[in-house]
Parts: sequence; C-alpha cells; structure tokens
Amino acid sequence: MTLVRDADPTVPEVLAAYGQRIVDALDSYLPETEPRVHLWDLVAEYPRRRGKAIRPSLCLATCGAFGGAVEEALPSAVAMELLHHAFLVHDDLEDGSELRRGAPTLHRVAGVPLAVNAGDALALVAARPLRDNQERLGARMAALVADEFDRMARHTVEGQAIELGWRRDAPVELTPDDYLDLIMRKTCWYTTIHPLRVGALIGSWARTDLDRFVRFGFYLGAAFQIRDDVLNLVGEEVDYGKELLGDLYEGKRTLMLNHVVTASVGEEHGRLVAFLGRERDDRSPDDVVEVLDAMRRHGSIEFAQSLGRGIADAAHSAFEEAFADVRDGPDRRFVEALIPWMLDRQS
Amino acid sequence: MTLVRDADPTVPEVLAAYGQRIVDALDSYLPETEPRVHLWDLVAEYPRRRGKAIRPSLCLATCGAFGGAVEEALPSAVAMELLHHAFLVHDDLEDGSELRRGAPTLHRVAGVPLAVNAGDALALVAARPLRDNQERLGARMAALVADEFDRMARHTVEGQAIELGWRRDAPVELTPDDYLDLIMRKTCWYTTIHPLRVGALIGSWARTDLDRFVRFGFYLGAAFQIRDDVLNLVGEEVDYGKELLGDLYEGKRTLMLNHVVTASVGEEHGRLVAFLGRERDDRSPDDVVEVLDAMRRHGSIEFAQSLGRGIADAAHSAFEEAFADVRDGPDRRFVEALIPWMLDRQS
Repeated sequence: MTLVRDADPTVPEVLAAYGQRIVDALDSYLPETEPRVHLWDLVAEYPRRRGKAIRPSLCLATCGAFGGAVEEALPSAVAMELLHHAFLVHDDLEDGSELRRGAPTLHRVAGVPLAVNAGDALALVAARPLRDNQERLGARMAALVADEFDRMARHTVEGQAIELGWRRDAPVELTPDDYLDLIMRKTCWYTTIHPLRVGALIGSWARTDLDRFVRFGFYLGAAFQIRDDVLNLVGEEVDYGKELLGDLYEGKRTLMLNHVVTASVGEEHGRLVAFLGRERDDRSPDDVVEVLDAMRRHGSIEFAQSLGRGIADAAHSAFEEAFADVRDGPDRRFVEALIPWMLDRQS
Repeated sequence: MTLVRDADPTVPEVLAAYGQRIVDALDSYLPETEPRVHLWDLVAEYPRRRGKAIRPSLCLATCGAFGGAVEEALPSAVAMELLHHAFLVHDDLEDGSELRRGAPTLHRVAGVPLAVNAGDALALVAARPLRDNQERLGARMAALVADEFDRMARHTVEGQAIELGWRRDAPVELTPDDYLDLIMRKTCWYTTIHPLRVGALIGSWARTDLDRFVRFGFYLGAAFQIRDDVLNLVGEEVDYGKELLGDLYEGKRTLMLNHVVTASVGEEHGRLVAFLGRERDDRSPDDVVEVLDAMRRHGSIEFAQSLGRGIADAAHSAFEEAFADVRDGPDRRFVEALIPWMLDRQS
C-alpha cells in the first residue's frame, strides 16, 4: 500500500485503490474480439459492473503485509477476481437470481445457454494470469499458486454442490454447524482463505506456514457471508444490488431460515417445511412475508447477527495469530479493519 | 503403439486399446470423496459411460508417430478427454439434448443447477493432469502444452457461442462456408487439431512446426462432424447413443438444414424459415418429419455426404504434408486410417 498518511484510509478507500489496480490489470485479459455479442461482451459484463474487489484486495494487502510488492501478487489477484465472476454467472443461473450489482443477471440478459458458455469462458480466462506467474515469479512459485487455486476452486464447487443439494432435497433439520461447514467450503475458501494464503505465499516467498490462515480466513469469511445473508432480508436494494428477499424465494438455507424451521412447532413448523419443499416459482410473496414474519417472531435474525458478532470476535484473535510475525503497517491494519467492516457494511 | 502384428489392428481396435490406457489414467483424477451424490458421482457419470476416445487416442498415436512414448503424452491426453466431458455436460444442457451415450443427459439426471456445477468441476479436474506435466515433462514443455490447451478451449467456447447465437437469433441464410467456419472452431480444434498438435509437440520434443496440423486437423475434424450430423438423421439410435433427429428439434444449423433452407422457395421456404424461428418445445414431430422430407426432396443429405467425401479426399493430401517427415509405422497408419473411418462409422 502506498496510501500512507496521518490516518489510515478507510476500508472502502483501500478497496477502491486496490480495486482500480485489479480492474486495470484484469481488463488486459478480456479479449476485444469476435464473437462479441454472443461471447466476449457477455464475459465482460460482470467485471464491468465493478464489484467491491474484496478478494483481490485482501490478497494484495496480505502480500504487502508479508513483505511483497503489489506487482508480484497482481496476476494471482486478477485470477481470483475472474474466477469469482465465473462463479457468479453460474451461481446466479443455478439459483435463479434476478439481479446482480443492480442490473439483471447474465442468464436473464442473454438466456441460459449463452450464460453457461460465458461462465465457462470466464473460468478459462481466469487461468491465464496464473500462467503469466511463470514468467513473473518463476516456475516453482507459479506452481504453488496454481495448486492453491485448484484447491480453492475444488472447495468452492463442493460447497456449491452441497448447497444445491439442500435446495433440491429440502432436508428439514440443518444446524448452525451444517451452515458453517457449508460456507467454509462455498464462501470462505475463495473469499478469504485463498486470498490470504496466496498473498502470504508470494509476499513471504513461500516462507510462511499457510495453514495458519485457515482459521482466520474462516472467521472473516463467515462474518462476510452471515452479513450477506442478513442484508438480503434487511438491506436497501439500491445498495445491495441483488433482489431483496431473493434468498427466501430461493429457499437458501441461511442461519435464519434454518433457525426458524428448528424453532417453530406444530402447524407453523408444518407450513415452513412445506415452504422448503416448494419450487422457487411456487413461492408467493405472501409465503415469503410469512417466513420473514416467523423469523422476526422467533428472533432468527438477531440469532444470526449475534453469531456473526461472536465470529468476528474470534476473528480478531485468529488475526493476531495469523499475522503474529508481521510488523505494523497500513496493509496489516487494513486486513484487521476488514473484520468489523464485514459486519457493518450496507452493501 | 505396441499392437504390432502382421495386419494392422483396425481403427476400433486401436481406439479400444488406447481408450483403456486413457480410462485407467483418467480414473485416478476422479475424486472418490464427499459430496458424492451431488457432485463427484455426477462428475464421473459421462466418463464412466465410456466414449470412443478419439481425441486422446489421436494424441497418443501422434506422439508415438513423432517418436515419443505413450506415457509422455498420457496426462495431456487425459486432460483433453476430461475437458471433452466438461463440454458435453454443458453442451447437452445448452442444447436441451435428451440422450448421451444411450442414457439420459446429465441435466435430466440431476437437474440444471447440479449439472452446471458438475461441468464446472470437470473442467477444474481437467486442469490437473496439465499441472502434472510439470513433473513429467519439465516446466517449459508443460507450459507449451498448457498454452495449446488454452488456445483450444478458447476456440471451442467461441464456436459454441456462435452456434448458440445462431440458434437464438435464427438467421435465414447460412452458407457452407459459415458452417465450416463454425465447426473449425467448435469441433475441429478440440477434436483433432489440438490432439495432433500436442501429440507432435511432445513426441518431437518441440522440434515440429505445429501449424502444419491445422489444415489436416480441420479436414479430419470436419469429416467427423459432418458424419455426426448425418448420423443424427439416418443412424440407428442404439449405435448412435443420442436421440435421432434431435438436431432437427434443436434447430441445429447443419449443412443439411442450411442447404434445404437455401434450396427451397415460396411457401416451402416460408415454412422452413418459420421452423427456424420456433422454440425447441414448439417443434412438433410433424414439423420435424416435414423438414426431413424436404431435405430428402432437395438432396440435402447427399449434398452433405458429398461434401464430406471431398473433405476426406483433401484430408489425405493434408495428412501426407503434416506427416511428411514421419516414417511408416502403426501409429502413422492409424492416424491415416482415421480419415475414411470418420465417414464410415455408424456411431
């Protein structure tokens, strides 16, 4: 980080600065060629809508905290951002989501077939900066980063499979542990653990034990996902960029939905179980409002927020452990500041 | 090839022998782990149905013809076979196909969301043998193979995008050149050109100009695709393994369909154009029989078969050019024997 001044820049300021580096570098990997309408324009659609760049910023900052230069981690950070977009395209389609970053999801813009293919192309493009690591970092380091990338992607498709399986099979009882195990795979690996590991791997030139980032990354990523789930119920759509209550229409097994199903009894429980078993298109606005009311009555949202706060507390001590031998500086402080920001953010 | 005897083994015999090597090596890349039902069993589904293994066999034989050992090209051949399966899963879903290798397509078995995710996992698994090339072939050769793989995958998603775009937008006039340009990207690169290039790259240890394989691979792959399209109209479903006439229900822009649209006039032409513009689900069996009858009247199938024969003739001279400095032997003869086999095969 070069944004050194009297007071540290805020988290959004750092995300904006690192995010700009990512966008500039990422752009060079998006082909400006035919077929545009049916492929490369679609591939560029989500990247051009600009996200928060949490993942690549966390990677660049961790690389900096461990003594590396931004340029060394830039291709790897671009690769994770591109793969993130590939995941989003396919996830939106798998979930039947309607909005992404304030605009229609890609399968609604282009239809399912072209969106599946554009997602495939994004994953393909994501592999290119990893190959460029060979020249920039040498064959050994490039191979280590590629192994990390593969592990992260595998955890993610496994997590996605578990979540889609829950949606298809609609199991009734799911505990907070089931939820945390799911988001460990589906969210934490690619959102926090992988960026931390790769940043430290490159920054320390493979002199850091990477397993120390699993615990911190899990807590940080879990705080992110819990907040994301809560925002879907209580956020402002204009900030949030996705359709509010979309998770309820999808029957997404959040902490809140699992909590209310378990806490309810009798007829109310029966109605919630019936809701779980319904297809998305068969869930009416009245159904969704009823589930939301039940969550409010049973304190399901407070339960999730409280668990989120406990996880954020745990994240602080895990951060101290993971960054124990890193000296103070803006990058280290940015990573630490992400912990409360994850729970406070409005979008 | 070790199958040396008085007479050369037939093409199906060589495909079976090389195919077994591929299956054995490929199996080790399929994780035997949870989540099985919602992911890894689905990932293994198409590979376990066994295909013809044309692509990896062509790669192994070309490697052998250029002086390499099977083991050197095996990981790269496994990678292309795995990516082939990844393409099939997403293509079947994009095309709304019903049968693959005599059984329901994966999205019909598991639903669209889990099938999209399983296809993503297959593409991910496909990248692993390429990383194993580092150890087996060294960093430089592994990088050259990975570049070839990337180029092939890019041509393929571009070709797929063009075809899906045709289906969505239903242009009326498409010439044989349009068709050949499409299958160059969609089929030839990954079915023939890439296996030839990678086989020769490894077999000759990067001492061969790979561009010589573009022409031969194009003719060989085009013969394969034209035969595939014709079999969909005239084959026996039990051999073919896909639903007969499925291409017509999909409105796939084969040589035959483009020919009959261009050859027809007046009311018949109007009815065919209306057929092109219809959704798959709105095409009745009567519609499809009408199009097939029109193709028969206009000689559209003979036209395609005749073009296929011309292309096979051109493939022979392109083969002589591409394999000019390769001495006679069973692998070279197998590659040459693929040319007539492509047009004669019943499945």
